[in-house]
Amino acid sequence: MTQHSPGSDSAAILVEALPYIQEFRGRIVVVKYGGNALAGASEDDALASFAEDIVLLHAVGILPVVVHGGGPQIGEMLAKLGMKSEFVEGLRVTDAETLEVARMVLKGQVNPNIVSALNVHGPIAVGISGEDANLITASSFSEALGFVGQVEAIDPSIVNRLLAQDLVPVIATIGADDLGQAYNINADTVAGALAAALGAEKLIFLTDVDGIRSDASDPSSRINQITLEQAPGLFADGTVSGGMIPKLEACVHAVEAGVARAHVLDGRNPHALLVELFTDAGVGTMVRP
Amino acid sequence: MTQHSPGSDSAAILVEALPYIQEFRGRIVVVKYGGNALAGASEDDALASFAEDIVLLHAVGILPVVVHGGGPQIGEMLAKLGMKSEFVEGLRVTDAETLEVARMVLKGQVNPNIVSALNVHGPIAVGISGEDANLITASSFSEALGFVGQVEAIDPSIVNRLLAQDLVPVIATIGADDLGQAYNINADTVAGALAAALGAEKLIFLTDVDGIRSDASDPSSRINQITLEQAPGLFADGTVSGGMIPKLEACVHAVEAGVARAHVLDGRNPHALLVELFTDAGVGTMVRP
Amino acid sequence: MTQHSPGSDSAAILVEALPYIQEFRGRIVVVKYGGNALAGASEDDALASFAEDIVLLHAVGILPVVVHGGGPQIGEMLAKLGMKSEFVEGLRVTDAETLEVARMVLKGQVNPNIVSALNVHGPIAVGISGEDANLITASSFSEALGFVGQVEAIDPSIVNRLLAQDLVPVIATIGADDLGQAYNINADTVAGALAAALGAEKLIFLTDVDGIRSDASDPSSRINQITLEQAPGLFADGTVSGGMIPKLEACVHAVEAGVARAHVLDGRNPHALLVELFTDAGVGTMVRP
Amino acid sequence: MTQHSPGSDSAAILVEALPYIQEFRGRIVVVKYGGNALAGASEDDALASFAEDIVLLHAVGILPVVVHGGGPQIGEMLAKLGMKSEFVEGLRVTDAETLEVARMVLKGQVNPNIVSALNVHGPIAVGISGEDANLITASSFSEALGFVGQVEAIDPSIVNRLLAQDLVPVIATIGADDLGQAYNINADTVAGALAAALGAEKLIFLTDVDGIRSDASDPSSRINQITLEQAPGLFADGTVSGGMIPKLEACVHAVEAGVARAHVLDGRNPHALLVELFTDAGVGTMVRP
Amino acid sequence: MTQHSPGSDSAAILVEALPYIQEFRGRIVVVKYGGNALAGASEDDALASFAEDIVLLHAVGILPVVVHGGGPQIGEMLAKLGMKSEFVEGLRVTDAETLEVARMVLKGQVNPNIVSALNVHGPIAVGISGEDANLITASSFSEALGFVGQVEAIDPSIVNRLLAQDLVPVIATIGADDLGQAYNINADTVAGALAAALGAEKLIFLTDVDGIRSDASDPSSRINQITLEQAPGLFADGTVSGGMIPKLEACVHAVEAGVARAHVLDGRNPHALLVELFTDAGVGTMVRP
Amino acid sequence: MTQHSPGSDSAAILVEALPYIQEFRGRIVVVKYGGNALAGASEDDALASFAEDIVLLHAVGILPVVVHGGGPQIGEMLAKLGMKSEFVEGLRVTDAETLEVARMVLKGQVNPNIVSALNVHGPIAVGISGEDANLITASSFSEALGFVGQVEAIDPSIVNRLLAQDLVPVIATIGADDLGQAYNINADTVAGALAAALGAEKLIFLTDVDGIRSDASDPSSRINQITLEQAPGLFADGTVSGGMIPKLEACVHAVEAGVARAHVLDGRNPHALLVELFTDAGVGTMVRP
Repeated sequence: MTQHSPGSDSAAILVEALPYIQEFRGRIVVVKYGGNALAGASEDDALASFAEDIVLLHAVGILPVVVHGGGPQIGEMLAKLGMKSEFVEGLRVTDAETLEVARMVLKGQVNPNIVSALNVHGPIAVGISGEDANLITASSFSEALGFVGQVEAIDPSIVNRLLAQDLVPVIATIGADDLGQAYNINADTVAGALAAALGAEKLIFLTDVDGIRSDASDPSSRINQITLEQAPGLFADGTVSGGMIPKLEACVHAVEAGVARAHVLDGRNPHALLVELFTDAGVGTMVRP
Repeated sequence: MTQHSPGSDSAAILVEALPYIQEFRGRIVVVKYGGNALAGASEDDALASFAEDIVLLHAVGILPVVVHGGGPQIGEMLAKLGMKSEFVEGLRVTDAETLEVARMVLKGQVNPNIVSALNVHGPIAVGISGEDANLITASSFSEALGFVGQVEAIDPSIVNRLLAQDLVPVIATIGADDLGQAYNINADTVAGALAAALGAEKLIFLTDVDGIRSDASDPSSRINQITLEQAPGLFADGTVSGGMIPKLEACVHAVEAGVARAHVLDGRNPHALLVELFTDAGVGTMVRP
Repeated sequence: MTQHSPGSDSAAILVEALPYIQEFRGRIVVVKYGGNALAGASEDDALASFAEDIVLLHAVGILPVVVHGGGPQIGEMLAKLGMKSEFVEGLRVTDAETLEVARMVLKGQVNPNIVSALNVHGPIAVGISGEDANLITASSFSEALGFVGQVEAIDPSIVNRLLAQDLVPVIATIGADDLGQAYNINADTVAGALAAALGAEKLIFLTDVDGIRSDASDPSSRINQITLEQAPGLFADGTVSGGMIPKLEACVHAVEAGVARAHVLDGRNPHALLVELFTDAGVGTMVRP
Repeated sequence: MTQHSPGSDSAAILVEALPYIQEFRGRIVVVKYGGNALAGASEDDALASFAEDIVLLHAVGILPVVVHGGGPQIGEMLAKLGMKSEFVEGLRVTDAETLEVARMVLKGQVNPNIVSALNVHGPIAVGISGEDANLITASSFSEALGFVGQVEAIDPSIVNRLLAQDLVPVIATIGADDLGQAYNINADTVAGALAAALGAEKLIFLTDVDGIRSDASDPSSRINQITLEQAPGLFADGTVSGGMIPKLEACVHAVEAGVARAHVLDGRNPHALLVELFTDAGVGTMVRP
Repeated sequence: MTQHSPGSDSAAILVEALPYIQEFRGRIVVVKYGGNALAGASEDDALASFAEDIVLLHAVGILPVVVHGGGPQIGEMLAKLGMKSEFVEGLRVTDAETLEVARMVLKGQVNPNIVSALNVHGPIAVGISGEDANLITASSFSEALGFVGQVEAIDPSIVNRLLAQDLVPVIATIGADDLGQAYNINADTVAGALAAALGAEKLIFLTDVDGIRSDASDPSSRINQITLEQAPGLFADGTVSGGMIPKLEACVHAVEAGVARAHVLDGRNPHALLVELFTDAGVGTMVRP
Repeated sequence: MTQHSPGSDSAAILVEALPYIQEFRGRIVVVKYGGNALAGASEDDALASFAEDIVLLHAVGILPVVVHGGGPQIGEMLAKLGMKSEFVEGLRVTDAETLEVARMVLKGQVNPNIVSALNVHGPIAVGISGEDANLITASSFSEALGFVGQVEAIDPSIVNRLLAQDLVPVIATIGADDLGQAYNINADTVAGALAAALGAEKLIFLTDVDGIRSDASDPSSRINQITLEQAPGLFADGTVSGGMIPKLEACVHAVEAGVARAHVLDGRNPHALLVELFTDAGVGTMVRP
């Protein structure tokens, strides 16, 4: 007689994940973890849940790379320091002092918080930035914006070396030019360029929306898939706007460069990464060739 | 607002498996898969389910080694061939002809069936026997039993080489002496000796009982744990009897030799291996130091 | 005064083998060992002599790969089991039951006998089949013949891995399709396809004839060499017929694919392999570009 | 006629460095770079000069590891943020908020400034902290001081991995306990513990004094060498006091653990590191077994 | 106050060498060391100074390869043995006996003297010749000259193997043909062919002149740089003559084959190699693409 | 019918060598090749025959190391140069000039002749001496004898490196002290010390006698085996005398240090090495533990 043992439901779910684990084993998955993706839960819980997801990917042999920004945290620190910011077309003008604060917050606060949440599970995460081993060569995005940078080149060597040693790189998106001058760079853009440079299997944006909607105010209008051909139209007709622009641009850039799939997911859902990677449930918006 | 996404229950279960995956990653788990462990389901379904479990272990970085017997299948073939067997103390007297049939069935039928069920999921399994690369050096168990063998020595080199290449060895328990004479050896005994020689993390017997019972007729009397100290008493007072004797002996031998945990599980439960390895549910009987 | 020491004749012969050893060292030689090549001596003596040859190749750094069939042994077992076979154009119709027997005999009897004969000399041989690690992907040869298979694809990875570890693979020619369905495949064909896939230096068929004759009944009409250009003519005019057809086809296929030389030798001669490889004596028929 | 070519004086100096380069090639040198070691020159010049020294060590095959503190910079940032600090026995009481600022300044400001100065010369430096890959396990130093930590354990694996890849680790001395709670740890202490854990050849403190003096006010009283036997006396009689205490303690600890030599040098001298390592000139104070 | 420490001038010079060390690290530099380059100092001093230079290159991670001739030493030995030499167009006619002496002096006297001078600094140098592991395949240069050889082929495998093991090959320029017949070959020619075959970064000739002069008698007429385009003219107009011809030919050959720079330096200047490699001082004549 | 094919006798002899090839594969065999071992044949023939033996060992995977002296050749060159030698107790007093000649002849004449004879068969031999990479550290044997050296230390690293690259080291027995001063050392002694340092399987002396005789004038009195216990008696009673003393001492030293067998063979027999290694024929005298 077959007995129904305790735990057999769990086992069945593990077995359902098997083909996905086999598919992604040994592949690189770049995950952009956004500062403001975390509104639905206390920030610490959200980070802990995110950390569990990344550690699980790592445990089953997938190679996750975490890229993060930290706009809200930078704004908070500038406020504490009584520093005012000018904005040009929605982007913060970044003088030398502001850059210093941005770099300090990204590398000294946001980055180590993520690293620390991962290392609770074992010695697996290492925090680096684009300044380390010349990972990101940057240049000025526009004179008006000061030390806001754009990506000139990615040398993914240091990331590959860390991956080769079974480590999870957590990357703050500060770059530098040849003279050592630092720049603050949009993390969405870096994530896309890095996924392309690494030949990643997937690029995943964890955001605070549930994907791209054809009608921003209508949750039921989420677009499940976007092909490279469809993307320009969505920019042109205004469907994609605001902070979603650099995300979708990065997705398109990465997929054009050979990344198989790029995703915009709602990071407020617990374990959104695992649901996307290991189950049949379709969540968020996927960009594909 | 946090949404409850489809798939998040599955994700939660994956996360519960995380510490177990981390604990056993890179470790060897020897699994004895018994011919008669499969009564509760059609044999093919049971084999397919078993194969999923082994492939999942492999996919998350654990190193499974499968050892199998095939008593019922040997008996069936002997019957087809009209060959009669004598029995001495419950063990089949194995003359040269019987040995030939036993070897043929184990290596030519049972072994490739398991290999084939695994390789449906990818090119991961390789069938070998104790005769390959001198894995098992055997000698005669007793003159009266003919070519029934006992383990003289295990040279696990070939198993380690296959593991090093990300393959799953499936082992038929035929051994040979220095002159090339083959012997049929009890698969439980081989599993224990191999786990010891490999320095395995775990030795797991999949059987058709739910563990060791203090009262054989009372399912509720299952013994959850046995320490090395308690084992001799269980043999002495007859609690352990029949086919369970070589299993518990193998468990004791393996744990004495450094294997951390040895288990007797009910292989009739679907995914019993996964339940044991990846959930908190305690199933079967565990032997520990 | 130079003395004539005992053993110096032997030394002279070793020295004569030197250039051949140097030429073939580190190269792959695929040897098809046929069930009925062994008529001239007791089977055991022939196998022991064959084993010595293979072990010697291995000892001097050549990489032998053994492929075998087992038609006579399969027929014998079918007879014992009282199973009758239909034949279509000389090929046995192979239903599911017949396949099971064929697989069992090849993998469980013929293969381990060869492995065992080799391992008497040291832990060097490992028996595998086309089902292991997806070595041979097969498909049905013709509906009428049932589970007689043809080679769809060879993935020589497992063979190369074993060679890389100084082991001698002994291969039973059972393949499987993607669903795990097994097929029995002509061993001559597999030997040719495998030699091609491995980039072997040589493909050698050990048979019970002394090569290909222009007049089948006249031993003195043996053809020493056949070029790729000459081969089609020999098929067309009937010089090559019967069981020699798949052998010569396999030779032609392998040489077209880059194998330097393919040979049909008389396996009844003691140490025919060594004579061919290490002496100037021309034996059998050679196919060359 | 031997001409005196331009550049031959330089060549002579390179030749004088030869035995030192040979002696230290492939060896680890841990350098503690102190925030207040840099008073004698503009900070940027001092950092650039320090960077040249480290890059030269790296270029000739020595394995430098940089450890840094950042007390003055932390104080400055606390002041900017209007946060007041209590002091207990000269140590800053570090509550959660103060720790957050300290970590942010060390990892987000001091560390990237050093990394950036090194990477101007090539992609060689990577900034990490004790929180990365569990490098430093910390615990509370004393309840009164809050999140001031002490070293519980060093796992140098991540440092060795970076060195193995020809990179220069630059280490901020924040550690964490098993729960992920961060602590700020005295950089001198960390440097000593790390040198011991790495089996470093040398531990070098770059400070703003010219070594240890028997009479603090008399530059000519510098002590050139201290043996392990002499050290306790120097603590006992007050010769070593203030900030020099953790430095000398770290030197003693490291030398006791097998580090061959530990040095306290005046970092205000240009290229003090090179002078110490590559010339016969004795500078600063050396601790030896 | 910044103090001027003892040794800081030396440190400054080391720092000036830094970019050169970084540039040449891991690159091959072939140095032709000529028998008569050493007139300006006692020979032993010159050799000791040369050895220091080579050992320093090795110590900082550059891969030096030394090629040497030995004309004067051969002449001396022939004289001692009372053997007279004929000359044809300035080249010594080399009969079998003369070859034997030349080979003996080069491999048995000049080569070990250089090796020995290097190994005083550590176990780093190994003396080989073109006869070892078929490094140089030679043929007769002209019948009239006997066993004076020319380079037929270079197999740099043995040199690369020694370099891979952190050794400095010192090469005597005797080659052999396929039958094992030895030839004495012009060392300048070998150095050029070897630099080409190794893909060296630099080829350097140490001679007893200070470079190539437009007016042989006017030291101030030294030509600093020669491009590949300019070279033919210098041969044609007689600017380059005598022993300088094979040197410049070798430079041109090597640069054409991809060597970045070839130099003719005055080996009588102490540490001429270091001055050329590690300082801005321009010495000798450089050939570049 | 079994035919007797051409070449089958040769094959049988190869098969007889099989167990020896298997036994010695991958093991080091140090062969001392003596200048005066070659009287029975023209020297060139003897060298060619010796070369075939060494190349065959190499081809079947054994690791031969050749050590040679060259007393007769040195004497001849000294005579040609008109240099007279004094002798003390049968050993040549070696002043600086004599040493120079000895080194020149050994490294520049004897060594390259052996290397050249080997390389006719392929790029496998490399000539080195004890001066290369500090292989042999020597000191003066006695003041009276000048630069006759004794072995102070063997650093076999360079030999192991060459073996690891599938090369055959040919070693001239010149050593050097720490100052680079060369010494000429007895080649028998070096062979023994090297075999010990390498952990060789065998040490073989090729001489011009047929082993050690109990009665020097009676060929039939050859002693087949000597144990370590028996050796002292043979020295004491004068059975071993003259040039046989250093040989037997070296044998004893090597066997005491772990070499399994040491042999004195008659190198005048063609292929004496092969006869000893690959046949059952007992030749010469063997020293064993």
